[in-house]
Amino acid sequence: MAASSLLRSLTGRGCAGPTAFSRYYRHLQYPFSTAAAAGAQGEAGWGFPGLGPTAKGEKARVVVLGTGWAGSRLMKDLDTGGYDVVCVAPRNHMVFTPLLASTCVGTLEFRSVAEPLARIQPAVSKSPGSHFFLARCTGVDPDAHTIDCETVTDGQKDALEPWKFKVAYDKLVFACGAEASTFGIHGVADNAVFLREVHHAQEIRRRLLLNLMLSEVPGMPALLICIMHAVPSAESSRTVRGLGKGFSGRPYPRLCNAGRPRLEPGTCWLQAANEILSSFDVRLRQYAAKQLVKSGVRLVRGIVKDVQPNKLILDDGEEVPYGVLVWSTGVGASSFVKSLPFPKSPGGRIGVDEWLRVPSVQDVYAIGDCSGFLESTGKEVLPALAQVAERQGKYLAQLLNRVMKAGGGHATSAAEVDVGPPFVYKHLGSMATVGRYKALVDLRQSKVR
Amino acid sequence: MAASSLLRSLTGRGCAGPTAFSRYYRHLQYPFSTAAAAGAQGEAGWGFPGLGPTAKGEKARVVVLGTGWAGSRLMKDLDTGGYDVVCVAPRNHMVFTPLLASTCVGTLEFRSVAEPLARIQPAVSKSPGSHFFLARCTGVDPDAHTIDCETVTDGQKDALEPWKFKVAYDKLVFACGAEASTFGIHGVADNAVFLREVHHAQEIRRRLLLNLMLSEVPGMPALLICIMHAVPSAESSRTVRGLGKGFSGRPYPRLCNAGRPRLEPGTCWLQAANEILSSFDVRLRQYAAKQLVKSGVRLVRGIVKDVQPNKLILDDGEEVPYGVLVWSTGVGASSFVKSLPFPKSPGGRIGVDEWLRVPSVQDVYAIGDCSGFLESTGKEVLPALAQVAERQGKYLAQLLNRVMKAGGGHATSAAEVDVGPPFVYKHLGSMATVGRYKALVDLRQSKVR
Repeated sequence: MAASSLLRSLTGRGCAGPTAFSRYYRHLQYPFSTAAAAGAQGEAGWGFPGLGPTAKGEKARVVVLGTGWAGSRLMKDLDTGGYDVVCVAPRNHMVFTPLLASTCVGTLEFRSVAEPLARIQPAVSKSPGSHFFLARCTGVDPDAHTIDCETVTDGQKDALEPWKFKVAYDKLVFACGAEASTFGIHGVADNAVFLREVHHAQEIRRRLLLNLMLSEVPGMPALLICIMHAVPSAESSRTVRGLGKGFSGRPYPRLCNAGRPRLEPGTCWLQAANEILSSFDVRLRQYAAKQLVKSGVRLVRGIVKDVQPNKLILDDGEEVPYGVLVWSTGVGASSFVKSLPFPKSPGGRIGVDEWLRVPSVQDVYAIGDCSGFLESTGKEVLPALAQVAERQGKYLAQLLNRVMKAGGGHATSAAEVDVGPPFVYKHLGSMATVGRYKALVDLRQSKVR
Repeated sequence: MAASSLLRSLTGRGCAGPTAFSRYYRHLQYPFSTAAAAGAQGEAGWGFPGLGPTAKGEKARVVVLGTGWAGSRLMKDLDTGGYDVVCVAPRNHMVFTPLLASTCVGTLEFRSVAEPLARIQPAVSKSPGSHFFLARCTGVDPDAHTIDCETVTDGQKDALEPWKFKVAYDKLVFACGAEASTFGIHGVADNAVFLREVHHAQEIRRRLLLNLMLSEVPGMPALLICIMHAVPSAESSRTVRGLGKGFSGRPYPRLCNAGRPRLEPGTCWLQAANEILSSFDVRLRQYAAKQLVKSGVRLVRGIVKDVQPNKLILDDGEEVPYGVLVWSTGVGASSFVKSLPFPKSPGGRIGVDEWLRVPSVQDVYAIGDCSGFLESTGKEVLPALAQVAERQGKYLAQLLNRVMKAGGGHATSAAEVDVGPPFVYKHLGSMATVGRYKALVDLRQSKVR
């Protein structure tokens, strides 16, 4: 518990310490068991450390890349009686993204929105053949049925070269999600904070309060601004709502008492072009805009041209100074996904058929934001939403369990197995909060896609 | 509450955002109140932003540097009916250091060991003349009765020049503590984690669990080591005990199940020369050592010569690889204290007389780890312990309240006032935990110093 909750803040980070041992490994002077190494290498019987192919008698191994909505739901439902589950991901927990924005302002604690994988699928910490590896997949060999992995060491000033290893799979599932889009705007990656992981929320919370603290310093104004493009996503409004509450200044009475030195933070929401929350019905959008403005949010139309450490430049040359810059503008295909040797869907995601399989190879599947229907399926690519990912994970777990029970669990043995009905997505509507006790719910004719 | 708990992790850090405004301040394009600046500058009437001298009619202003044991207790007890309290410190909370080590391993939550100053002394966030400034004091002008301050911006990759301001004082109290000693050993500052602030504990916890996670990776050994010199402080053993629990591997069963690939983390406690916990009775020291070894701690005698990112070099040339390096070796005078133009006590602390005054100047006091009795007092310098600092804060609050009631609250008006009895320290004994449900208590003849 302590462990899991702690590591929740590790997302996407690493530490030089351990990887360093790959260097000093051979001449460590303090006695410690090398069973881990030996054992693993033994298992594999390669020159390379890792997990070797499973034998016919053993359980089949499902390797899942990612611990998001899709991957977590998949692992939760997999039948560990017939499958060993091996998860390779740069974070050891699932983030309940709809509530992430609330943690930025202390409405919720960070641990409330992160669920350790070991509790979603206990097998990864208990069952002998199941593992969680805090690592990143760097390559796939569909013919050999193996993936290349390396430990995460980025974000460390003294990071050494990562430790590399291989994992052989019987079934491989890509659930590695997408990346926040910067639209190639200069300075975004360096100066903005995204809102996709727990450590993002922690950084926003830290900067937000630092700004409020510093606003007390004589002669020093502070300005808190939240920038985002209009995206068909509830996240944006939740963020603004969250930040808006951050501005209420409750912990800083002197920011609010009239007659006292006082700062007036402004929330500024830049819109690329369209309305905010453009996926919602027009009346709901208008209501949302009214509520946000009422709660002190300034809505501004404009396109960001350049982002500097303390101000942005709009396309009309206007300068917008900021204290905290939150970039919540939707997602696009990650560089890892782009690098994969598979046919892509419109939008550059991993292309899948109606059964969420990658048709060009055997035993490979893709779910969630990283996957999309191939054009050949005649279906449109599903939106990058939790409800899509979660139901794809559920569906694929059922499919894989069915395949396993039919004797097709191991590599290249599923050719003749009936995989059952294709995946069908039914949109159940959208919600977005726009202030305390205020929210939008859009239940227009849910479309079957 | 959210705010305070959030900022607890800000200790000693800063953010470029706000300070940036000192630059763009004049041509901000978004409307916001400049009352803060105007107001403050008005107050001071200098060219420089800040708080100007208090008028005779107004409350006198006590400026406290620091929010540790000494400063927090002082501010808690100050009579805010007669004094305005202005605190200048790089963190806005007090840390309950005796339990800090427990937060490294999740026994306690971080917020449990940090108490926001605004709750210790509500005046700083409510009373018009009282303030908390998240800043660092850079200089003192005892004749003008002013201090120079600048906002904290270190630890930020894109930190800009800090925002500078002045604060005039009627009474100035140094409670700025000490710095962890590195004994000039190369690489300590870069590679070791200290254990003095909440963010230190967070970093230890992060690295500790990262090591445990990575130990699951095939072929990759991990080794967790805690290094500290023998110091007359309970902190060390608490730390080891804490880390020891981290090793219990509860969240990582496969680290402990025999027959499974397994790592054997070692806790290594290096001793400079003497016993561990050298302030304790010899039998207690022996008991502690036995308990620590029993709980898997390896006690090693040796002197660290060099610290590298993943191993240490001992004076006998031996190399000790480590995953996490905790440096808990006692404290010494900080560079700020060294830079002050006051006579020093043995050990380089700010020299004070029996009334904790800095005798060479008026209206300046020093308490806690940053202060020590001048040789001229014939008293020995008190140990850097919480119980010393806390009682000095309590004593000084009473002294200042007495002075204020006698009409000596304002600058240079206390010359004729009776300051009452000198400060007398009575040692009440020491405690140290050495494992769950095990602890040392040393109640030998408490010495009056």
